[in-house]
Amino acid sequence: MTHCSRRARLGVAIGAAGLDAMLVTDLVNVRYLSGFTGSAGALLVYSDDRPAVLATDGRYRTQAARQAPDLQIAIERAPAKHLVAQAFDGSGAGARQVGFEGHVVTVDGFEALSAVAAETSQVTLVRASGAVEALREVKDAGEVVLLRRACEVADAALSALVERGGLRPGRTEREVRRDLEALMLDHGADAASFETIVAAGENSAIPHHRPTDAVLAAGDFVKIDFGALVAGYHSDMTRTFVLGPAADWQRDIYRLVADAQRAGRIALVPGAGLRDVDTAARTVIADAGYGETFGHGLGHGVGLRIHEAPGINATADGTLLAGAVVTVEPGVYLADRGGVRIEDTLVVADTAGQPPDLLTRFPKELTIL
Amino acid sequence: MTHCSRRARLGVAIGAAGLDAMLVTDLVNVRYLSGFTGSAGALLVYSDDRPAVLATDGRYRTQAARQAPDLQIAIERAPAKHLVAQAFDGSGAGARQVGFEGHVVTVDGFEALSAVAAETSQVTLVRASGAVEALREVKDAGEVVLLRRACEVADAALSALVERGGLRPGRTEREVRRDLEALMLDHGADAASFETIVAAGENSAIPHHRPTDAVLAAGDFVKIDFGALVAGYHSDMTRTFVLGPAADWQRDIYRLVADAQRAGRIALVPGAGLRDVDTAARTVIADAGYGETFGHGLGHGVGLRIHEAPGINATADGTLLAGAVVTVEPGVYLADRGGVRIEDTLVVADTAGQPPDLLTRFPKELTIL
Repeated sequence: MTHCSRRARLGVAIGAAGLDAMLVTDLVNVRYLSGFTGSAGALLVYSDDRPAVLATDGRYRTQAARQAPDLQIAIERAPAKHLVAQAFDGSGAGARQVGFEGHVVTVDGFEALSAVAAETSQVTLVRASGAVEALREVKDAGEVVLLRRACEVADAALSALVERGGLRPGRTEREVRRDLEALMLDHGADAASFETIVAAGENSAIPHHRPTDAVLAAGDFVKIDFGALVAGYHSDMTRTFVLGPAADWQRDIYRLVADAQRAGRIALVPGAGLRDVDTAARTVIADAGYGETFGHGLGHGVGLRIHEAPGINATADGTLLAGAVVTVEPGVYLADRGGVRIEDTLVVADTAGQPPDLLTRFPKELTIL
Repeated sequence: MTHCSRRARLGVAIGAAGLDAMLVTDLVNVRYLSGFTGSAGALLVYSDDRPAVLATDGRYRTQAARQAPDLQIAIERAPAKHLVAQAFDGSGAGARQVGFEGHVVTVDGFEALSAVAAETSQVTLVRASGAVEALREVKDAGEVVLLRRACEVADAALSALVERGGLRPGRTEREVRRDLEALMLDHGADAASFETIVAAGENSAIPHHRPTDAVLAAGDFVKIDFGALVAGYHSDMTRTFVLGPAADWQRDIYRLVADAQRAGRIALVPGAGLRDVDTAARTVIADAGYGETFGHGLGHGVGLRIHEAPGINATADGTLLAGAVVTVEPGVYLADRGGVRIEDTLVVADTAGQPPDLLTRFPKELTIL
């Protein structure tokens, strides 16, 4: 039902662009439009009311029928080529102008599809890069349910980790990562949504540190950036803790990052310039003299991919759309000392007066463990 | 050192194909040739002795210098475009015919690279798809060390799981998966090399079942297909157990699959036709009347990707190369009853008289738990 309305929206968009149909080969986009989660397949969506066709190979016969019961399904060794041939049905009612994903189809793949199109002598392949991603930027109700669940799983796993004393001097970054990922699976995640970052002490100053055998020590910052994957949807959250009494410099930069993060969340209103949202948080950090230590963008969209549109950073064009789901994640990183990042995943409200809906609800006060 | 010799081999191959240089944009191939593991970057390798250039963005400045100390490094927002511009150095000594990976570069990406090439008015982009993958098919000594370690980690994790009673009636598929993946991290894996398959009872008849909350019960087959990732290299192993006394039909199909797997391993000699290796195992199963239940290929190469060249299946062309690392994984799947798959990862020997080197050493006898 949801998938049907997504395909209908795509049909309208491609019709407006003068296309008769669109060949979707990005597997995340195929999933978004059909519900099919196999590792091979392609989808043909028409701009009129002809039913979409899902093509996949023999391994997925049963799965495709179960996951996409409302679609016509073709079992073929070369799904995309089959759909190009299929796009012109010979009756005169076939598609002529067929969009394809130029940001996904490779040069070799395009050559193969072009040969099939030439054989039909009716189908012209037209670039329509990013058409599905543009739809995915705004999440529908079903997607928000899954994103909320993914964030709840991450919240619950981190709470359980802290409650059982999983963050204490003597443990290694790798052990913490392993426990947190196992707890996410316990709480219903299908997997971690990316390789969990656990960065202790000096390592917390590295924005994307990979867990090592480094041992957590008293006085360390411990920065944890992680998420849960639920039914294809990713959550993304960062929290930074202190092991034992915090030093003054730790309290100072923690408060600074928390203030910047709040400023970013407040700026997260529909219609805001993406760059302005970044600026709202960045200015707080820059005004305190730490601007150079915040070397990454403020946030990004999150959904069926961990990073998707929109990017919220200093060079982004465009505006924030109502119903987009994005992260807000400023950081301050002091080389050889330590760093703090605080990150939430939020849903942009429908109307300008309303605050965003906070999906990652684990507390953001400086926690002394 | 190793990376240097890999680049030298690529240089010879592209020189023989009439190219002056090759632009490598597949990140796994970049890693193979340079050691660089960042998530963005590209590499330009010359056919003569000019030093290769690694281009990446500012996030990876430190990492690139550390991982690829023998390379010239360029920090650029658009690494591949920079390297195309760089390929012609204006002195007359630049590259003219520059290969690119047509199976990796997208249609949109190619358009952008072509525009840069046109600006130089000297560089011609030439398709050289699969040139690096062809080198990767035969593993060098350093790669075999890492693959062996990845297989040892998987062996140790499965042994620990069995010894602690982790496979017993009452547990769920998801719990077993979680424990096994945590044990792999404990034993030194960087991650699971793919989402672990744990399939109990009827589910074992589904070749690529995803773990559910299904509960393991006495009399079940439990099929586990999993691997460890170590320094970028994947291991791949499947074992099938029985929980409690095995029924006759279970013993029968287990013995059949074990016989087929042995036949496949025996056929794994350098120079053998890939199709013939598949046939050697498949015939054992077909002769017993179960041919239709074995619906997938016999094996595949494994290395920096979990699936790479060569494919060992009924339609494969070509021959097995000395030093290739491949899986042998026949299966028999009886719908609504259960299935067995037995899979090893092995190194093809250098000379025809020698057996392959078995990397996955967990026992293959039918284990009654």
